Amino acid sequence: MEKIRIGIAGYGNLGRGVELAIRQNEDMKLACVFTRRAPETVKLMTEGVPVYHMDDAKNMQDQIDVMILCGGSATDLPEQTPELAQYFNVIDSFDTHARIPEHFANVDKVCKENGKLAIISLGWDPGLFSLNRLYAESILPSGKTYTFWGKGVSQGHSDAIRRVDGVKKGIQYTVPVDAAMDAVRAGSQPELSTREKHQRECFVVAEDGADQEKIAETIKSMKNYFDEYDTTVHFISEEEFEAVHNKMPHGGFVMRSGKTGAGEQTHQMIEYSLKLESNPEFTASVLVAYARALNRLKAEGVTGCKTAFDIAPSYLSRLSGEELRAALL
Amino acid sequence: MEKIRIGIAGYGNLGRGVELAIRQNEDMKLACVFTRRAPETVKLMTEGVPVYHMDDAKNMQDQIDVMILCGGSATDLPEQTPELAQYFNVIDSFDTHARIPEHFANVDKVCKENGKLAIISLGWDPGLFSLNRLYAESILPSGKTYTFWGKGVSQGHSDAIRRVDGVKKGIQYTVPVDAAMDAVRAGSQPELSTREKHQRECFVVAEDGADQEKIAETIKSMKNYFDEYDTTVHFISEEEFEAVHNKMPHGGFVMRSGKTGAGEQTHQMIEYSLKLESNPEFTASVLVAYARALNRLKAEGVTGCKTAFDIAPSYLSRLSGEELRAALL
Repeated sequence: MEKIRIGIAGYGNLGRGVELAIRQNEDMKLACVFTRRAPETVKLMTEGVPVYHMDDAKNMQDQIDVMILCGGSATDLPEQTPELAQYFNVIDSFDTHARIPEHFANVDKVCKENGKLAIISLGWDPGLFSLNRLYAESILPSGKTYTFWGKGVSQGHSDAIRRVDGVKKGIQYTVPVDAAMDAVRAGSQPELSTREKHQRECFVVAEDGADQEKIAETIKSMKNYFDEYDTTVHFISEEEFEAVHNKMPHGGFVMRSGKTGAGEQTHQMIEYSLKLESNPEFTASVLVAYARALNRLKAEGVTGCKTAFDIAPSYLSRLSGEELRAALL
Repeated sequence: MEKIRIGIAGYGNLGRGVELAIRQNEDMKLACVFTRRAPETVKLMTEGVPVYHMDDAKNMQDQIDVMILCGGSATDLPEQTPELAQYFNVIDSFDTHARIPEHFANVDKVCKENGKLAIISLGWDPGLFSLNRLYAESILPSGKTYTFWGKGVSQGHSDAIRRVDGVKKGIQYTVPVDAAMDAVRAGSQPELSTREKHQRECFVVAEDGADQEKIAETIKSMKNYFDEYDTTVHFISEEEFEAVHNKMPHGGFVMRSGKTGAGEQTHQMIEYSLKLESNPEFTASVLVAYARALNRLKAEGVTGCKTAFDIAPSYLSRLSGEELRAALL
């Protein structure tokens, strides 16, 4: 069997996650990695796989079946996905929810002009959480959907902490509020404010002689990041920070509380949750599974831009329809 | 907009659930109900909808877009689904896991000969639980999947209790063992025996003068039903039985404990759970959502037999692709 040849565009945490996830899928191989850095400065974990400059990607079309884009959503993907979709079938994890329709339209246009297929906005949210919202709302049309995130590291909020004067190192955990989740599970379909759903917990290493009280106050009152939440700031030593806060765990919950039956009196509860020790490694695993789906759909002649909503689940698996029905149905 | 015209074949708990679920979906209407009883003895909850004998179904082809079969898996569906697939696009909830491949082949053959489309084995297990096993195993290929059922009523085990001498009324709840689920969540990927995963809890109303000790012993030692489990038997009054045990709750958990990353040292946990106050009403809600999917796929010219694995999630929703991407992705 011919292995699916995967290209990785962008070699940060997510790109490394994709490299490792490919090893867990025997029907795939890593063809090459593209970077905007000087290629000779990038050291892969996989022997014998070449690293090229991103500008050379377009010359490698015959080497790659699926290109997985591993850049960031703020500035990389809005440019890179349409750019590379001229030459490749592409997968990305574009996660700026409000801009997905615009990104979709851009990528769809390029794909259709060039006979390529893209699947965008994959990962867990958007991605698996979105799928669960869709299934649950379609099955229980009368109800309310809740998404809780955490406990996990928010990069955006951690970055915000680190910009505060006197902060040497900082990390922020988003923590879902148990009482809110329990109220949802009980079926009361509560209206929950931002503050009621999540708390923010910060661990900070202060610079020598910095005013800790002032740092804490600055963080807690930061507009758009912390002011609408109950925020806790813990000052810890650099040793503790390096030992305990060196991972990128995340996760969360999608819940649908619905009512069925005569007079809609019957409570039906659907809950999906993820508890991830590594957010980028898990996101990478999702991208790689959908690379398999893309490769199959492309072989069937499908082009344009798709999302997880458009992909029948069986396309993600290595097993045949017959095997799936016998083993997993 | 033309509403999707649904027929119901078989009017028990599941059929009534489908009737009620249709009311929650404005793009559908109940066209008619078919029964093997005398039609005039069947009273629907919906005004103005006719009831016909099952034998007359084949004359009603132009009245129905999707026929939802609501019979049992033991004897009804293996005959009825292929029979009705000659004349209708059909949906069923066939749930005898071991016989799904055979049922699929039978239905597929009839569908292809008659240009019809079927989606079989829908509900929550098989159905939503199967989907979660498939997504989770595709995304985390290195790991272990666990399915726990309950707390909920098992009809088969309740029937078995009621066949015991001296039992007037009886109901059995399948209860997942918390310690086993916690071990899975902790990432140890334990091997769990049947006894370690589930307990069986029975509530019995004994006939006057019956030997309760003997009844309990007979239940606990019943082969294939109870002998491999820790079983508790509670004797209660008929009043309590009628007041407390008159519902059909069920639910369960699908868990995937997977490992990713360098040396597969990173634990990633996916968990899906249902807590259902009414098993038949929820199953009915799944069938109705897939009836929408079937109707769309049929309009695209698709024929043959499918399962939930083959259906892209977007087909289940009333929303357009554009609306879904903006609202749920």
